[in-house]
Amino acid sequence: MQSSNKPSPSLPPMFERYRFDVANTLHRSISDLHLKEIPDLLKYHLGWVDRDGNVSQTAFSQGKALRPTLCMFACDALAGDITQAVLGAAALELIHNFSLIHDDIQDQDIERRHQSTVWSIWGIPKALVAGDAMQVVGDLTALMSMEKGVPVNVVLKVSEILTESYLEMIEGQCLDLRFETRTDISSEDYLGMVARKTGALLRSSVHIGSLIATDDEHITQAFSEFGNHIGRAFQIRDDYLGIWGDASETGKSNDNDIRRRKKSFPVVYGFEHASGIAKKELISIYNEEINEEEDVAKVMAILEDVGAPQYSAEITEKSAELALSAISGLDLPDWVDQEIGDLVNFLVNRQY
Amino acid sequence: MQSSNKPSPSLPPMFERYRFDVANTLHRSISDLHLKEIPDLLKYHLGWVDRDGNVSQTAFSQGKALRPTLCMFACDALAGDITQAVLGAAALELIHNFSLIHDDIQDQDIERRHQSTVWSIWGIPKALVAGDAMQVVGDLTALMSMEKGVPVNVVLKVSEILTESYLEMIEGQCLDLRFETRTDISSEDYLGMVARKTGALLRSSVHIGSLIATDDEHITQAFSEFGNHIGRAFQIRDDYLGIWGDASETGKSNDNDIRRRKKSFPVVYGFEHASGIAKKELISIYNEEINEEEDVAKVMAILEDVGAPQYSAEITEKSAELALSAISGLDLPDWVDQEIGDLVNFLVNRQY
Repeated sequence: MQSSNKPSPSLPPMFERYRFDVANTLHRSISDLHLKEIPDLLKYHLGWVDRDGNVSQTAFSQGKALRPTLCMFACDALAGDITQAVLGAAALELIHNFSLIHDDIQDQDIERRHQSTVWSIWGIPKALVAGDAMQVVGDLTALMSMEKGVPVNVVLKVSEILTESYLEMIEGQCLDLRFETRTDISSEDYLGMVARKTGALLRSSVHIGSLIATDDEHITQAFSEFGNHIGRAFQIRDDYLGIWGDASETGKSNDNDIRRRKKSFPVVYGFEHASGIAKKELISIYNEEINEEEDVAKVMAILEDVGAPQYSAEITEKSAELALSAISGLDLPDWVDQEIGDLVNFLVNRQY
Repeated sequence: MQSSNKPSPSLPPMFERYRFDVANTLHRSISDLHLKEIPDLLKYHLGWVDRDGNVSQTAFSQGKALRPTLCMFACDALAGDITQAVLGAAALELIHNFSLIHDDIQDQDIERRHQSTVWSIWGIPKALVAGDAMQVVGDLTALMSMEKGVPVNVVLKVSEILTESYLEMIEGQCLDLRFETRTDISSEDYLGMVARKTGALLRSSVHIGSLIATDDEHITQAFSEFGNHIGRAFQIRDDYLGIWGDASETGKSNDNDIRRRKKSFPVVYGFEHASGIAKKELISIYNEEINEEEDVAKVMAILEDVGAPQYSAEITEKSAELALSAISGLDLPDWVDQEIGDLVNFLVNRQY
């Protein structure tokens, strides 16, 4: 399981299997909103319509929908009823996208997934309301699970997990805002931050799916632990791709994370391990606006010198191993073991 | 029950009775946040500390805390256990304040309750996170009611009501954003907008308090209805005070709502009922920035000519009557009837 730039493994079939169930639920939840133009902003953000509200040719093709897929798969893997998990799955996607809309305002990012961000088209006030709306629709969608026969104590537990995980997301955002102005963050600080900012919701995705299927705490805790580790693997691979990936595949931006001066994991590691002239150079480059191609090349050279790509890959692989070991004691059907292997392999080696 | 500029009735004792219970709970919920500086922003917004984080001399004196007071009173009035209602009450205040923090960003208001707004001090990104944090703490606080022995189905119901009511708040905000650029809004449109923007949470405050006390739907529906009508009475009185009130008492702004070109109820009524030259003048004044004292005086004269203050007072009084009649069939203890009378009298005749 070597994370590198070799051809990307294809998206495992589970991403296909649940896609339309989830998309239908999302679509229904958003269309039920009596909010005049706001649903159009949400649909635009999700890549379903263009900025004029016309159905996009690439409708439903945007984003991997990782969180709902993990939720549905966890339920399915434990022989749960996936029609009961689909509302929680949709809620996870809505809450993830709420955080993206607000993140884009915060970071003043003008592009995401190859398209202009909501605030950059409609302005901050409407983007703010759109984000708030996305979040509350997420909450409501989760609560509606009751109508699918999910027991009331499970619905409440799901609601608690969602709420706590977006509190963690907010904690992560706060730390991230603070890190922006610092050059002395340790790898450990960084891993703690992303565990909150992106890890919590990924962990919750697996956890919620498992809770819909079973009330056996031994199993749901193991699944939650699995989710925790694949969350880290996912994020550190993301950070790796933000520097050494192909931007036309990742769709994150036309720009490399280094040019955007994003303090992602390899950069934090670089600051921690570079010394002498290299360290001074890093600090000087990150203290000014980077526009020079030359500076990007310099930073990449320094990161490669201190072994940042290798160490990032190591963390990703180690997390993948911990994920697998978290559930190794469970007696899961063969097809589940097979698909978990494919999923983990994809997360570690993906190019997008 | 004449709403006018006669001396304001004093704040009914119920506002004193529950204040510290609620404040303690709010304080604990916010202090539990592991969010570095964010709790300080929230405490600043709530008027507990100054912008440097020092305890304010006026600590706990800011705001009437209307929503938590309504919630606690509703529970108390129905002989419920108010220690079970206090978390819901705190949640209502947190969600109300989340909406204020985001509202201030949206409206670019630089002052609220005689102090600078959060975004105007710390910038939009941090204010956005602070608002999100306030909201999620509200959600979590409501869910914690379970630890006070509130049955799981009631906690879930409370959670649903909160979620649905801030969806209504967001709907109201959207309508409000749209109304800003229009001069043809009817009184009815306006009342529909404020029913969502501010009415929903006030209604929910009374409703939630009653649900903690009893599962008798006949009673909880009557209380919800009561909350609905006092919500309208409260808002229209607010709009009246925004023009004819004493800004030093209301603390809304140093400026009159007319100077801020806020399309509050009397103004909407003015647009609807003015004709000829007066109407043209209104439109012309609202299409440009108002800076001239002269313009404010002109608008006030027009509003008074068409009877906007009287009609605003009528709506307030009518709503108060409907509120009282919603619960007139219930057999409530004398002290409750007495305090409800005082409350309604205060809401209709208050000067602040």
